[in-house]
Amino acid sequence: MYIIAVYDVNKKRVAKMLKLCRRYLNWIQNSVFEGEITEVKLMELKQQALEIMDEEDDSLIIFKTRQEKWLDKEIVGKENQSLENII
Amino acid sequence: MYIIAVYDVNKKRVAKMLKLCRRYLNWIQNSVFEGEITEVKLMELKQQALEIMDEEDDSLIIFKTRQEKWLDKEIVGKENQSLENII
Repeated sequence: MYIIAVYDVNKKRVAKMLKLCRRYLNWIQNSVFEGEITEVKLMELKQQALEIMDEEDDSLIIFKTRQEKWLDKEIVGKENQSLENII
Repeated sequence: MYIIAVYDVNKKRVAKMLKLCRRYLNWIQNSVFEGEITEVKLMELKQQALEIMDEEDDSLIIFKTRQEKWLDKEIVGKENQSLENII
């Protein structure tokens, strides 16, 4: 399956969430990731996210689609590519 | 068409972008919106976003799908609903 994941976490936990999400997905913007992932890997990702997150304050939204071709992506303004190499 | 829009803009421009996106879409998290929109309305939204954004620094990503049912949404942690009433 293909997913988009967007998190909104307290800045104290941003670095950990970024690192976690990058292990499973491609980083496309600030707190936005996308990628092909299996059901099992997604479960892993969610479990680990919950260990980092404060469930009262933080959230992680996952949009799932069976096939990437059903989603069309358009970027207006700056692309994040160049940042990939910095962090 | 059904879209997800996520912006990453300098905090000086966040309030304007939030206000703009809320005119066209439903706010679901921090800088994340979703909703049914026509081609024409989406064009309007993008044009107005470009007037607010600094194209060197800011970005707006739009994921489009023809039908909402092709996207499955899951929220881990806090839901944003309660904030809807505050701002």
